[in-house]
Amino acid sequence: MKVRILVRLKPGVLDPQGRAVHHALEGLGFSGVDDVRIGRMIEMDLADGTSDEDVDKMCRQLLANMVIEDYAIEKVPAGEPA
Amino acid sequence: MKVRILVRLKPGVLDPQGRAVHHALEGLGFSGVDDVRIGRMIEMDLADGTSDEDVDKMCRQLLANMVIEDYAIEKVPAGEPA
Repeated sequence: MKVRILVRLKPGVLDPQGRAVHHALEGLGFSGVDDVRIGRMIEMDLADGTSDEDVDKMCRQLLANMVIEDYAIEKVPAGEPA
Repeated sequence: MKVRILVRLKPGVLDPQGRAVHHALEGLGFSGVDDVRIGRMIEMDLADGTSDEDVDKMCRQLLANMVIEDYAIEKVPAGEPA
């Protein structure tokens, strides 16, 4: 079972990395970029029996910093690459 | 227009961060984790006229290191949060 976890900063939390990327994109001549936010993607291969509750627990205990970050869990269909 | 870019290490490229997370999950008592790979998620608000080609160029020039990383571009439907 493949699971993808997207961890992003909560709305309102300052994202200096995103600002730097935004600035760099403008420096490269890309206009029309309004906002950039950067987060993490964690892809896990899990044993088929793993419960959603366990995945949730992994996020809360280790993968996301619940003070400043939100997470979303997506199940990746078996056929999809990576 | 909201665009999400997922940047991940190419298959075969060593992922020490993923191994560390894998190890930490096992240390916390989560069994059944077979593999962990860590990547980046970049979420951008773009002007509506921005072409797919431009987004592709941003990835190649700045957002992904094409030597060791692959990227995927996803358009986020307007209604979806974050």
